[in-house]
Amino acid sequence: MIAEIICVGTELLLGDILNSNAQYLAQELATLGIAHYYQTVVGDNPERIKQVLAIATQRSQILIFTGGLGPTPDDLTVATIADYFNTPLMERPEIIEDITKKFAHRGRTMTASNRKQALIPQGASILPNPIGSAPGIIWQPVPNVTIMTFPGVPTEMKLMWQETAVPYMQNQGWCGETIYSRTLKFWGIAESALAEKVAPLLEMKNPTVAPYANFGEVKLRISARAKSQELADKLILPVEQKIRDIAGIDCYGINDDSIASVVGKLLLDAGETLTVAESCTAGGLGSMLTSTPGSSQYFYGGVIAYENIVKISLLDVSQEDLATEGAVSHAVAKQMASAVVKKLRSNWGISITGIAGPGGGTEFKPVGLVYIGIAKITGEVESFEYRFGALRSRDWIRRVSACTALDLLRRKLYLSAGRLQ
Amino acid sequence: MIAEIICVGTELLLGDILNSNAQYLAQELATLGIAHYYQTVVGDNPERIKQVLAIATQRSQILIFTGGLGPTPDDLTVATIADYFNTPLMERPEIIEDITKKFAHRGRTMTASNRKQALIPQGASILPNPIGSAPGIIWQPVPNVTIMTFPGVPTEMKLMWQETAVPYMQNQGWCGETIYSRTLKFWGIAESALAEKVAPLLEMKNPTVAPYANFGEVKLRISARAKSQELADKLILPVEQKIRDIAGIDCYGINDDSIASVVGKLLLDAGETLTVAESCTAGGLGSMLTSTPGSSQYFYGGVIAYENIVKISLLDVSQEDLATEGAVSHAVAKQMASAVVKKLRSNWGISITGIAGPGGGTEFKPVGLVYIGIAKITGEVESFEYRFGALRSRDWIRRVSACTALDLLRRKLYLSAGRLQ
Repeated sequence: MIAEIICVGTELLLGDILNSNAQYLAQELATLGIAHYYQTVVGDNPERIKQVLAIATQRSQILIFTGGLGPTPDDLTVATIADYFNTPLMERPEIIEDITKKFAHRGRTMTASNRKQALIPQGASILPNPIGSAPGIIWQPVPNVTIMTFPGVPTEMKLMWQETAVPYMQNQGWCGETIYSRTLKFWGIAESALAEKVAPLLEMKNPTVAPYANFGEVKLRISARAKSQELADKLILPVEQKIRDIAGIDCYGINDDSIASVVGKLLLDAGETLTVAESCTAGGLGSMLTSTPGSSQYFYGGVIAYENIVKISLLDVSQEDLATEGAVSHAVAKQMASAVVKKLRSNWGISITGIAGPGGGTEFKPVGLVYIGIAKITGEVESFEYRFGALRSRDWIRRVSACTALDLLRRKLYLSAGRLQ
Repeated sequence: MIAEIICVGTELLLGDILNSNAQYLAQELATLGIAHYYQTVVGDNPERIKQVLAIATQRSQILIFTGGLGPTPDDLTVATIADYFNTPLMERPEIIEDITKKFAHRGRTMTASNRKQALIPQGASILPNPIGSAPGIIWQPVPNVTIMTFPGVPTEMKLMWQETAVPYMQNQGWCGETIYSRTLKFWGIAESALAEKVAPLLEMKNPTVAPYANFGEVKLRISARAKSQELADKLILPVEQKIRDIAGIDCYGINDDSIASVVGKLLLDAGETLTVAESCTAGGLGSMLTSTPGSSQYFYGGVIAYENIVKISLLDVSQEDLATEGAVSHAVAKQMASAVVKKLRSNWGISITGIAGPGGGTEFKPVGLVYIGIAKITGEVESFEYRFGALRSRDWIRRVSACTALDLLRRKLYLSAGRLQ
């Protein structure tokens, strides 16, 4: 069985939206082991949708449509498909009932335009939409062609795909070997350096190992084609172990881990707490740490010391050092980290002070110069200098500074946990 | 002239990458006034690329290919196109020379596989690639069909498009009237409510007015088709004025404005300064404010009071109120805002305390309950309660809380500036 993705919507032809639905469905088809050779985008135009149907029914057996299921006059995917196959539309009372209920729940009443969404080709099954008003269809209008329709709204499409379409296709026996993946995540090593270290593994066929990099983070995705998760694990886990042996502490986690969530887990395990003093990141580090639910168990908060007045008032940074060394210096980074630990009585304190640009750089202190301080409640304090380069964007420098600070703490926590074992 | 976008790459069929090239080219074609009715994605497979060519040459006159121009064996776009039109490939010495130079510049030597990139169909023109090794082609193999090829790498494709393809198409007289747009941005009004208020404008044809909404923000894009910016402005500006008259203060800016940048401008105009005390957003508000370069002119920083210990130590919040009213309350929001203003001597102080979820909600204080405090250095302080709903994600609640807080200050600054006039 060969599938084809057909996305309907003039907004796609105008470039108003990015076609993320096609990527999602492509990933899903690859995972399910269903071949797919073409994707088509077409506007909300009946004649052109029919031309696409004429082509797709010749070369594919599963036609997956997204878009054009709404209540407005330009939503005409289902009516056009029915017309192409000379099949009348029937109003389905269960859809009317479902839409009425959903509207009542939101305190609204159904409008006449929504009635259109209850029209389904005779003989088609309803593909239920648990959260929106537009249902899809699953329909075999002619032998060897199955049509499924989904709304263009990604959240609705994904839920309908997972809850109904995937089980349906599995029951039909259309799915082959499935692709199972596991992503290893790295910080503190360049993509090219990591790729060189694991070069022979990148040549493998099953599992495959593919590198990705973004915002200073490097990933290796190990993907195995297998009949079950268990069989896939037998292929993936030995390769993962090899990579971990090669990469050591540079590998910080897998799949949905973030450096912040890994640091959180290490702090939780150690029963320790953290505070922050942020200058150039101005809250970005705190925001990153608290994007993990439950982070209040190990993160207290801290100080956004963006301007010197805050460094002086709340962190007792020496005015003399600010004048002689400057706010972006080892001395100030150390004082910021020490002060936040002392004032808030956490086990660890992290400070960041740097020049995020685009302005504010000088010959000796260029844009991208960042100092990170790490202090312990026991009084020890260290600082680290980074030169991220003046060509990086403000956003990049701030984000990578926060991750680098967390990674410094991760390595310390990891090593001290190791010493305890 | 009708254009068609054809993206070649098995990585697109596997969903490994998002097809942002198609969106870019679609936006560009819309702006240039060149119609385009279909987009196709096909893998690196000669037979299927030829099938796509057979279809596209029947319905379109400008075929825009991206992908498959690299040096590896699976890059076969140009060879397949040449083969389809029974045209031999010729090695072009100027390309060999160009690639050799580029490689020398990077301290590398050209490999045999790169020689392939110098093969161009007989009669085709080179579409130069200023930054990469893969050139494209511009070729009219048969009357009424022009083919342009671009690499899949977005930076290279975009540069080649802008530097060569656009001027070429303009010289050929293929471009119609251009679309010029202006986006108005709104906060504090729902998309449906705004759409109702401006309903007659949404029916216009030139300019068109289209609503968008995301993360609590609503936008209206006014797009005019015209021969010049000046003529477009004549169509757009009266409609913009009508919308501004209808929306009033709910319209906060245009195009690249963010609420944070608009608040920054208002503070700068008033010569006033701001500090923050953040609980549930934990730095997100500070990070938002400082994403605008130059924000140190009006933003000092503040306190990340995520845990009560910080609220007590750095903001002198009453332990009794924390026990009786709870951290998420009018009383605590007011104290946080007042304290940060007093301690850091800024004109304005904003506080946010709330339950971002997914855990931590109760019957009376559900997830999504957020209090925002606004204090002035003169001693006035107010607090505002929001119930964003327990179904929203942690990320949504935190982001919308920060924007709502900034919007509250924006309205105050806007009104006080108005009073001064």
